[in-house]
Amino acid sequence: MKRVGILTSGGDCPGLNAVIRGAVLSGEQTHGCEFIGFRDGWRGVLEDDTLPLPRSAVRGISRLGGTILGTSRTNPLSETGGHAVVSAAMGRHRLAGLIAIGGEGTLTAARILSDSGINVIGVPKTIDNDLGATDYTFGFDTAVQTATEAIDRLRTTGESHHRCMIAEVMGRNAGWIALHAGMAAGAHAILIPEHRVPLNQIAAWVSSAHDRGRAPLVVVAEAFVPAGQKAPYSPRGLDTFGRPRLGGIAMLLEQQLQEMTGIETRATVLGHIQRGGEPTAFDRVLATRLGMAATRAAAAGGWGTMVSLRGTRISTVDLGVAVGTVKVVPESRYREARELFG
Amino acid sequence: MKRVGILTSGGDCPGLNAVIRGAVLSGEQTHGCEFIGFRDGWRGVLEDDTLPLPRSAVRGISRLGGTILGTSRTNPLSETGGHAVVSAAMGRHRLAGLIAIGGEGTLTAARILSDSGINVIGVPKTIDNDLGATDYTFGFDTAVQTATEAIDRLRTTGESHHRCMIAEVMGRNAGWIALHAGMAAGAHAILIPEHRVPLNQIAAWVSSAHDRGRAPLVVVAEAFVPAGQKAPYSPRGLDTFGRPRLGGIAMLLEQQLQEMTGIETRATVLGHIQRGGEPTAFDRVLATRLGMAATRAAAAGGWGTMVSLRGTRISTVDLGVAVGTVKVVPESRYREARELFG
Amino acid sequence: MKRVGILTSGGDCPGLNAVIRGAVLSGEQTHGCEFIGFRDGWRGVLEDDTLPLPRSAVRGISRLGGTILGTSRTNPLSETGGHAVVSAAMGRHRLAGLIAIGGEGTLTAARILSDSGINVIGVPKTIDNDLGATDYTFGFDTAVQTATEAIDRLRTTGESHHRCMIAEVMGRNAGWIALHAGMAAGAHAILIPEHRVPLNQIAAWVSSAHDRGRAPLVVVAEAFVPAGQKAPYSPRGLDTFGRPRLGGIAMLLEQQLQEMTGIETRATVLGHIQRGGEPTAFDRVLATRLGMAATRAAAAGGWGTMVSLRGTRISTVDLGVAVGTVKVVPESRYREARELFG
Amino acid sequence: MKRVGILTSGGDCPGLNAVIRGAVLSGEQTHGCEFIGFRDGWRGVLEDDTLPLPRSAVRGISRLGGTILGTSRTNPLSETGGHAVVSAAMGRHRLAGLIAIGGEGTLTAARILSDSGINVIGVPKTIDNDLGATDYTFGFDTAVQTATEAIDRLRTTGESHHRCMIAEVMGRNAGWIALHAGMAAGAHAILIPEHRVPLNQIAAWVSSAHDRGRAPLVVVAEAFVPAGQKAPYSPRGLDTFGRPRLGGIAMLLEQQLQEMTGIETRATVLGHIQRGGEPTAFDRVLATRLGMAATRAAAAGGWGTMVSLRGTRISTVDLGVAVGTVKVVPESRYREARELFG
Repeated sequence: MKRVGILTSGGDCPGLNAVIRGAVLSGEQTHGCEFIGFRDGWRGVLEDDTLPLPRSAVRGISRLGGTILGTSRTNPLSETGGHAVVSAAMGRHRLAGLIAIGGEGTLTAARILSDSGINVIGVPKTIDNDLGATDYTFGFDTAVQTATEAIDRLRTTGESHHRCMIAEVMGRNAGWIALHAGMAAGAHAILIPEHRVPLNQIAAWVSSAHDRGRAPLVVVAEAFVPAGQKAPYSPRGLDTFGRPRLGGIAMLLEQQLQEMTGIETRATVLGHIQRGGEPTAFDRVLATRLGMAATRAAAAGGWGTMVSLRGTRISTVDLGVAVGTVKVVPESRYREARELFG
Repeated sequence: MKRVGILTSGGDCPGLNAVIRGAVLSGEQTHGCEFIGFRDGWRGVLEDDTLPLPRSAVRGISRLGGTILGTSRTNPLSETGGHAVVSAAMGRHRLAGLIAIGGEGTLTAARILSDSGINVIGVPKTIDNDLGATDYTFGFDTAVQTATEAIDRLRTTGESHHRCMIAEVMGRNAGWIALHAGMAAGAHAILIPEHRVPLNQIAAWVSSAHDRGRAPLVVVAEAFVPAGQKAPYSPRGLDTFGRPRLGGIAMLLEQQLQEMTGIETRATVLGHIQRGGEPTAFDRVLATRLGMAATRAAAAGGWGTMVSLRGTRISTVDLGVAVGTVKVVPESRYREARELFG
Repeated sequence: MKRVGILTSGGDCPGLNAVIRGAVLSGEQTHGCEFIGFRDGWRGVLEDDTLPLPRSAVRGISRLGGTILGTSRTNPLSETGGHAVVSAAMGRHRLAGLIAIGGEGTLTAARILSDSGINVIGVPKTIDNDLGATDYTFGFDTAVQTATEAIDRLRTTGESHHRCMIAEVMGRNAGWIALHAGMAAGAHAILIPEHRVPLNQIAAWVSSAHDRGRAPLVVVAEAFVPAGQKAPYSPRGLDTFGRPRLGGIAMLLEQQLQEMTGIETRATVLGHIQRGGEPTAFDRVLATRLGMAATRAAAAGGWGTMVSLRGTRISTVDLGVAVGTVKVVPESRYREARELFG
Repeated sequence: MKRVGILTSGGDCPGLNAVIRGAVLSGEQTHGCEFIGFRDGWRGVLEDDTLPLPRSAVRGISRLGGTILGTSRTNPLSETGGHAVVSAAMGRHRLAGLIAIGGEGTLTAARILSDSGINVIGVPKTIDNDLGATDYTFGFDTAVQTATEAIDRLRTTGESHHRCMIAEVMGRNAGWIALHAGMAAGAHAILIPEHRVPLNQIAAWVSSAHDRGRAPLVVVAEAFVPAGQKAPYSPRGLDTFGRPRLGGIAMLLEQQLQEMTGIETRATVLGHIQRGGEPTAFDRVLATRLGMAATRAAAAGGWGTMVSLRGTRISTVDLGVAVGTVKVVPESRYREARELFG
């Protein structure tokens, strides 16, 4: 019986529980693996805070948001000796290896641990979809669906009042949520950090939609900065808690576009509703399959890899290949969406 | 064939189209009434901007958010001579009377017009549910449902990160949305303008939930001011566009509660998603029935009244009785909810 | 510390868990009551199958469908001596009384037990909304919302194919779900058991809608029988398992209406999806309040009553008054809906 | 200005309107194309029933279910001379070519027309996802999401009553909806036509779940036939209207599994709710992109092709390659799902 540790790390993401369930069920029923969970990501590894994960612990959880393991932003390598603590924890629990479900930070830590001889398999997790080496990350579809439903609601208010509505969605490094939710909701402008455009271009799109009798709809990623601006609203600035501040670009656009176009304008910051709650069926299936594949890789000794979606297939890639680059929206996808603007 | 004008006025509200459809279908099929619509509320009356409303114009609209007539915040009585302009418009279109669908402002205008001899019937409309003389207003159920679904999403993030989550909902004069969405979502504190409590009481509720292993959830109405505070965040203050500013109390609580409790805290301002989009079945039925009752009253010459829900019955009340007092959350309902706090 | 037993009986109904949570929290925090749960309704009482219900057992359950106590259709009085067994169970667990959450059958049993001296409080439960002495039962709003969303989906298929679509909804004794879901979805005919109409009238409504370019939509309660028919499809008949058979009337109408109108017709039987799943915010609030009121009544010694909704207030009524009559759709509500047909 | 005809053919499918909108907007704004629509699929071509499709005709439609063009199952080649009639219609309207949005039948007709010199581009459409040469078809994600939400509801009823619940989903030739909805909902058995298993194996899965304290959940595709059976319930048989009959396998399983396992069992046939209604964000994006790609291909003279999704890219494939084979669930995907059974 191979023993495997599992942890979820970084921001909440719909589908985490489905990954855990997929890994545990596949392990118990097919591969003769047994799981223990570390609480709150790497914190549980560093502080030896664990819980057993028999099959009964994961029943019915694939449709639940959140993570039964808890999560944190603890970095196992932020202090000297992190590697040794991880290694000791694995020894203490007689673990053949770890399955680490997390984003860029976690996968980078996983790669470093793997390079120094610790058995790790990564499962890519981010609602932002900005991880390379996989077509989609689980959580992204749910975030897009939630954002789209919210924007559909904003739209009726815009149409009733002949207003311009602005919706700020998540996306710190890449505009994937804005691109997809904007296309799905029929936005007249989609603004993403990868493609800076000046305010007067945005105002022209807004005015053009208004002139055709539409209620202009702008979907903007939190990290967008208009071309020619220095981001006085500090989209990457810090709030009073030392965290990046949501809502900066939404407020700037609300003020500037109303001034430039003369059209009454209202901004809404969708915020955390995008990262919580029940996963869509798409994300449940993807997350379940990724969890099963992680166990399959663990059972086969495929350490140092990350599981990944390519087309309709789940495969594995080397952790070294998987991390290090942000997957931004390519120019071709932006140009495609832009045909629908104005 | 009696001709009746119809208009929607004030903020967007789920169910407006269902009222219009109910009024028109009932008029055409049962009461021999014919409708014309005024565009954008009283603006359409003042500027004679109308559209015909045959049965075919309202087909399939009861499930659509927004209003096919458009809306605005124009007050017909804000300038001298408004009464005469309304009267002239009615004469020009040979209208026996008007059905005005709107909130406190519109119903007050309707009462004044009615007192001076103009035939008006009011239909109460507000997502805030703060109009007297009716058990519920249409739009409220949808706003509560939308807020509850959003808060359910926030909750999983709170639980995964062991954070306190704060959700700010609408409610400028009364805390009805906060009360209902807070009860539905299982909040550990519900904060409404009718019942000011000091920050240290709120912090105690948050800490108590945290101590029992829960992720504390606070639902707060936009107009709540903590006891003993002067509202430095100016919940009734104005933003750069001269509008009341959302989010003030959410940001204050985020900062203060985190400081007082030591628990990581995140606030989300739900904003305009609460007032747009598809109505719930409850609101579609209520709105349809109110629209039908308005036409029934018009056909019977029951001018100067407002249609209203009492228990499961639709009735009419005198416009003079209906307006003038804000329906706040009574002490008994607050005490009931408070049994669930902490 | 007063000890109270609680049980859920009869068919699944959204909001059961919210009732349980409301009763337990209110009891522990305000009234000094302590709860034990009986598993699977009266079966748990008869077989002494219980579980403790401290506050921690009900955390977060108000938004969950189903019942953490389980349910069954066991009737405590179906065999001689039932009364004594119930009484003995209460003695064994030192219970001051029982809170019984159930429908007509359970409430009737509760009344009989109460009459013979057992302390019981009833909480009315049925998605069908056919219990008297309360404006609405919890679960009904969710059933109507679920049915309406499903019918909205059927409608687009009808419109794309120019077909007549028939949706059969639940309602064994009364047409409340059909009435509300039909109004909400904009049906061209609503068929309920309280108001039998002949097939040729239904066909006329369908043809009239079709002639105006609409895709006819018929919403029918499972127990509707066309006027002049003997129910050859046996809506109250039994299937191979001895249960009433769903779908009989839908199939009859599909065949007959297609034949009579020449319009391609498709029927869908919504079935069990109407009685499961997450409750709406409306039902969560109503159920929570009813649960709290049941505990309040228990603490005050108000045995032999049923909690009930009147307008916006929760009150109690005598169990003897509450049971015995089915609350059918009154003629006035049917006539109101019928103005929208055709 | 290139003129292009567009039509939607076959069964309703969420996303049809998004394809039309994507094609028209892309044509007008980028490629100098102008569109006319044929009503009700090939019927509109054969009977010359058309409508103009300027940009204003497609505003806001991407989130609407159904098709603004209407659809039918008319086959243009079912009678002699079909080819000539299509050709004449195209000449009469000076069309450079046709964009045909449809399933296997339509794409086969498109290929035959194309082979005989008529300019056609196909857009693959089926909720069943059983068309080759594309990773997914639009409509499938919505069907899976709708089915999953319905099954989530059934599940709570199963758990409350300790019953086995059976959900029959669509899938005439392939089990894709059952596979995905079953995985998403956490089914204890998924039954698809590609992989016949005997009834006693299904009963064993059901009993195994029941023995572990679960409410067994079975998801079955309409066309599944148990191994060793002759389909006495005639899954491919015809109903009284000459259409394949839904519900046959659900009823058979309900009866047989209850008998074999002794566990109370209830079946629900989800039916037409799976093919109508608002598309998910995923399907809106996919459909919009496919529509745009179809116009791009038309503008470039790429006739005789079908647009297709490969990974995250939209490409074109030869119509001859695209049709002729049903894309069934491969053995590897079934084995993967099966690890979760029982």
